[in-house]
Amino acid sequence: MNFKILLSKKELQPYLLKARYGVEREGQRVTLAGDLVTTEHPSSLGNRQFHPYIQTDFAETQLELITPVAESIPELFDFLSGIHDVAYRSMNPEEMIWPLSMPPALPEKEEDILIADLERFSDVLYRRYLAKTYGRRKQMVSGIHFNFEFSDELLHKMFALQNKYTEYIDFKTEVYLKVTRNYLHYSWLITYLFGATPTSEANYFDSEDRPNEPVRSIRNSSYGYKNHGDVQVSYQNLNRYLSDLERMVIEGKLSEEKEFYSSVRFRGGKKMADLATAGIRYIELRNIDLNPFGYWGISEEQVEFLHLFLLFLLWQDEGVDADEWVAEGENKNEQVALEHPLNVTTYQEEARALLEGLTLFVEERELDISPNLLASVFNMVDNPSATLAGQLYQASQETSQKEVATTIATANYKRAWEHPYQLAGFTQMELSTQIFMFDAIQKGIQVEVLDDTDQFLKLTFNGHSEYVKNGNMTSKDSYIVPLLMENKIVTKKVLDKAGYRVPKGSEFSNIQAAIQAYPEFADQGFVVKPKSTNYGLGISIFKDGASFEDYKAALEVAFSEDSEVLVEEFLPGTEYRFFVINGEVKGILLRVPANVKGDGLRTIEALVAEKNEDPLRGEHHRTPLEKIQLGELEKIALRSQGYKMTDIPAKDEIVYLRENSNISSGGDSIDMTDVFSDAYKEIAVKAVEALGAVICGIDFIVPDYNVDPNEPGAYGIIEGNFNPAMMIHIYPYSGKGRRLTMDVLELLFPEAFTK
Amino acid sequence: MNFKILLSKKELQPYLLKARYGVEREGQRVTLAGDLVTTEHPSSLGNRQFHPYIQTDFAETQLELITPVAESIPELFDFLSGIHDVAYRSMNPEEMIWPLSMPPALPEKEEDILIADLERFSDVLYRRYLAKTYGRRKQMVSGIHFNFEFSDELLHKMFALQNKYTEYIDFKTEVYLKVTRNYLHYSWLITYLFGATPTSEANYFDSEDRPNEPVRSIRNSSYGYKNHGDVQVSYQNLNRYLSDLERMVIEGKLSEEKEFYSSVRFRGGKKMADLATAGIRYIELRNIDLNPFGYWGISEEQVEFLHLFLLFLLWQDEGVDADEWVAEGENKNEQVALEHPLNVTTYQEEARALLEGLTLFVEERELDISPNLLASVFNMVDNPSATLAGQLYQASQETSQKEVATTIATANYKRAWEHPYQLAGFTQMELSTQIFMFDAIQKGIQVEVLDDTDQFLKLTFNGHSEYVKNGNMTSKDSYIVPLLMENKIVTKKVLDKAGYRVPKGSEFSNIQAAIQAYPEFADQGFVVKPKSTNYGLGISIFKDGASFEDYKAALEVAFSEDSEVLVEEFLPGTEYRFFVINGEVKGILLRVPANVKGDGLRTIEALVAEKNEDPLRGEHHRTPLEKIQLGELEKIALRSQGYKMTDIPAKDEIVYLRENSNISSGGDSIDMTDVFSDAYKEIAVKAVEALGAVICGIDFIVPDYNVDPNEPGAYGIIEGNFNPAMMIHIYPYSGKGRRLTMDVLELLFPEAFTK
Repeated sequence: MNFKILLSKKELQPYLLKARYGVEREGQRVTLAGDLVTTEHPSSLGNRQFHPYIQTDFAETQLELITPVAESIPELFDFLSGIHDVAYRSMNPEEMIWPLSMPPALPEKEEDILIADLERFSDVLYRRYLAKTYGRRKQMVSGIHFNFEFSDELLHKMFALQNKYTEYIDFKTEVYLKVTRNYLHYSWLITYLFGATPTSEANYFDSEDRPNEPVRSIRNSSYGYKNHGDVQVSYQNLNRYLSDLERMVIEGKLSEEKEFYSSVRFRGGKKMADLATAGIRYIELRNIDLNPFGYWGISEEQVEFLHLFLLFLLWQDEGVDADEWVAEGENKNEQVALEHPLNVTTYQEEARALLEGLTLFVEERELDISPNLLASVFNMVDNPSATLAGQLYQASQETSQKEVATTIATANYKRAWEHPYQLAGFTQMELSTQIFMFDAIQKGIQVEVLDDTDQFLKLTFNGHSEYVKNGNMTSKDSYIVPLLMENKIVTKKVLDKAGYRVPKGSEFSNIQAAIQAYPEFADQGFVVKPKSTNYGLGISIFKDGASFEDYKAALEVAFSEDSEVLVEEFLPGTEYRFFVINGEVKGILLRVPANVKGDGLRTIEALVAEKNEDPLRGEHHRTPLEKIQLGELEKIALRSQGYKMTDIPAKDEIVYLRENSNISSGGDSIDMTDVFSDAYKEIAVKAVEALGAVICGIDFIVPDYNVDPNEPGAYGIIEGNFNPAMMIHIYPYSGKGRRLTMDVLELLFPEAFTK
Repeated sequence: MNFKILLSKKELQPYLLKARYGVEREGQRVTLAGDLVTTEHPSSLGNRQFHPYIQTDFAETQLELITPVAESIPELFDFLSGIHDVAYRSMNPEEMIWPLSMPPALPEKEEDILIADLERFSDVLYRRYLAKTYGRRKQMVSGIHFNFEFSDELLHKMFALQNKYTEYIDFKTEVYLKVTRNYLHYSWLITYLFGATPTSEANYFDSEDRPNEPVRSIRNSSYGYKNHGDVQVSYQNLNRYLSDLERMVIEGKLSEEKEFYSSVRFRGGKKMADLATAGIRYIELRNIDLNPFGYWGISEEQVEFLHLFLLFLLWQDEGVDADEWVAEGENKNEQVALEHPLNVTTYQEEARALLEGLTLFVEERELDISPNLLASVFNMVDNPSATLAGQLYQASQETSQKEVATTIATANYKRAWEHPYQLAGFTQMELSTQIFMFDAIQKGIQVEVLDDTDQFLKLTFNGHSEYVKNGNMTSKDSYIVPLLMENKIVTKKVLDKAGYRVPKGSEFSNIQAAIQAYPEFADQGFVVKPKSTNYGLGISIFKDGASFEDYKAALEVAFSEDSEVLVEEFLPGTEYRFFVINGEVKGILLRVPANVKGDGLRTIEALVAEKNEDPLRGEHHRTPLEKIQLGELEKIALRSQGYKMTDIPAKDEIVYLRENSNISSGGDSIDMTDVFSDAYKEIAVKAVEALGAVICGIDFIVPDYNVDPNEPGAYGIIEGNFNPAMMIHIYPYSGKGRRLTMDVLELLFPEAFTK
């Protein structure tokens, strides 16, 4: 099979750089001082056994972060970022993730290294077996597993262009076999570039059998976590490979197939044996040390290079004898792994030649890669100090490897905690959706972003899928309910009929009829508004009734906005948002217009500046609260109270900078959930039930929440909202945050919340 | 209790003309020739026993149409109109409704008059008792029962302004008692004005005991349907009234309370006895003859006058002795009822005085009534030929009463059948909602219009309520499903994942990335479109691929419309709409652009004119199809085919007048439901299931529906519609109509469809 000719076909070009990726990243949990923790796996992460994103590897302290399959490198790192955020913020805030493959200082007694406390006994047994066979210390090493699959389109088009294979599965298997043989032959280059385990911390080695000098990669050398020397398999073809493995298990050299630790693992069906019929679907590279300088243990450049390299290896000729070819590579790899990190490699010339071949391939195939990708790799070949091992070793010389690692871990930790209301990788989405995704990932519910501009997610847990938009639009509400709430007239009719107090009123489709109704409203507070209110346009409020002339003028304004106009009783009092989910009030919020509280010393301007320093306040809805502006509207609001920016309000005086209470114009959100009596909550729940809604933000006007709601006039209901904001409850300006996103998740996936 | 003083209070003025109304209208079914039918009650009306709108009265042939409670006169007549439409169009098309209170010619043998075949045996027994007591012939008279209730606001405000009664219920009862006593005293005026039973048809009277001359109202005279003379009750107060009635039942003079046929019946609780505790809630006037000239048996002017008259009777002083006062009225009424319809009444002066009092009352209370209402009544007092009896008698003189009635009935019948796709009274609503309401009324499901501009209905059957918008948005679909379908990208992802063929493609958020993808699309048909397509703006279709320049130009156009652009495989074939309800394909529709078929003789212009004569074609969506226009767009379409309006197309040649296939621009809707194989329907059902939808219009592209849909490329799915048009399936241009509205009703109320 001449892949060189095949890959040269012009029609393949658009697909050469398309692939699917997945990363598993291991990492030890350490204290803020950089010492291995003794705590259990975080309980907020639910059952790690089935968790799709965050599990434990060998040890109780060893996190394993797993991305789903990504269709592009940016997507892969979005997932990696998000999962890292969740892992960090689900851990004890006194813990962080060790950034090196080599573990931090280990306990002196081997038995103090705790094997992961998994639920399934077979998993524990396997770990006990590993501990016995290889020792617990060696199992504490962490790394990256990189899953790679050429795009289906590329392979299908290649298959169509050749005629050696009649079965697609056989063709695909041959593709991955060739890439694997070449990868094993050339893996020394990856060890040279990305090896990053020059020295160990205390108690990793328990004997004198250890490198005397710093190296490029302990983990990828014979001192690392390797099978014993009598474990050998052939890569000639898949059948041979599988029968070799099977034999080794029968002979007792391996406990099971997965104990075979090659730098490349074939992946396909559920079990190794399935490969025989299903063929190789993708490969897993297992020789990547954690990149200490990458936040995620691996960088985007590394992934891009690995993809390019794998593609090139499919193109690149291989040796005639497969097993010899692989063995030769393994020898070279051992050699390179044990070189001093700051020495030039023995294979520098060969490395250059290989990269020149790669460069030519990129040019001929017109591959659109990052501009500095190859130059940077060439530079590493020329300058060992630019390799990861070189960088880490050099930095450690000034202090110690532990201190370097602790400093990096601390920076990563701060980054993860900096914006607790965001989910890294998905910050272009709405805050509520980010937190919703955070919670889903934490609970081990799979998240798929179907459309990020539309905040459209698919969630799956144990085969049960739910679609969610905006974090609050779900299958639990029926289609008619939001339509009902969207229509204020219908909402009022339904609530009124069900016995709840709503502002009384009439709707008019001509101004004459509305004018005639004047006597009905003249002597009470009332509101004139267009039926479809847009940002308050055309609304007139008369808190104590109005003259006939004012009434007529208000009608004219309203009718200029809409052909239907409502005249409604005015309800005096304060507006509260009750957030009801599944028959329970999960949060009550008061929104207060942008304001500052005087201290008798500072100007309004200075008070605003101070209030704006709250990390929850930002701009353009990237934070739960918005900074208070000092624009025209604020000046007008101040002026109407007889103030200007430079005035100094008296101590404890509240000065408002806006008339409206919108959070988006700098207002304060104040949690009042525990202030209201159950009687109010019951009314809210029942009213939402009358509307037929499951998730609803229902707005009450309450003059005094100490009054029994069943007293006349104690409350009035203004409207129900079918897309109520969630973030303002989760991170309020004051009062307790209410994790509504978690409540919605529980509504959708109660099964993920049992136990 | 001085109601005169009370009603003069200024604050009551806005509420004086507010009231609630209900009408029951009886009517005999007759053949198109005007003869009593012998058929059963229409089976399409379901179970008449519990039907809220359409039942049978005494006889199997006697329809009883019942409005729900209306808050205004226009609303009352909207309901009356709608219910009449349903009644007419649910009857055998060879039948119509007799417009007179006096029945058409009756069978010679009394036993040939069929008692209504009701389900509940007690109902049948009661009718048998009536037949025996009064004779079947007398029971064949029809009339109007008019239910009237002063507005709650008026009564509450009156109650608050008085201090004689401490209980609201007692006060309200006194209001209705006074009105009733006065009504019974003055009912002769109503008989004079609205009496309309001057003569009978054959076999109504079975003896010589009948009027010798034409009269004003046989029905309201002692020849009508009256209790025997020994039935007398007092109206002094409610207790006396109830105990009199009870005594009469005990003495066997009445079989039960409801056999008491007064001109006014008190209404309140479920049973007569409930009145004692619940008080009188409203009154039912039972002395109104069918108005032969009103389509509904009563006119809006009559209702307005009756309301005004009842209000005036509350104001008007009454006699000291209640029973004497009532008895005096009954005597006068008998006298007036038996006067010749063209004679001036004995009480002309008294009538004038009464109307003058009424006029003064209207003026003093500044009541806003129809301008000619009182003048018209004065005119009737002056000119007996202007009364209903006078008009009917005069018209009958020229031919016969039967012929006059038959002519009127025929006109009414034509009116009901003229626009079978509309529901009279609700023609301002969308056609689909009109037909949906029609079907609901027919099935006996209660309909409430919560918002007519929003097509928002509440339906209730046996205590089970459902809200519906647009006739297709219901509680059966979940909130997330329409949001999913609204998003074309998400829709495609979901369908693709579920294994259905959708156009392959990619989305781009920057033009550079899109340009680079050119090679992927270059050699196939494809479409470039903005993510949010608005009326096709910015869409380019390349059926056979495109040059790089054309591709780039198309991207620029698309990106000028939206920040996200899709490039999608073009699927060749014809588009069909599959309408799926609850897991079944209920209709498949092909939409064809506006077109005419040549006959080799006439011009395009003439062919269009002829096609536009189809009664299904109209303008502005008032009909299922739209008239083909001959505007600029049509001229352009013709020109592109080398035609002008005055050309004569060859026989059978199809000439298109539009490029788009929208029904709204004159396109044809063609039912294809029976053309497609079950295999296609199964795919549609399953695809809709994958989308999670219950009601969905899913659009397929099918090149050839004779090809097995499982063949590659046999179909592609374009989109799912969550608000699919229904009317185009119900009244298609050609093929069988599919009553989708009935299917939606059955989905919502399966219990209304059993049996």
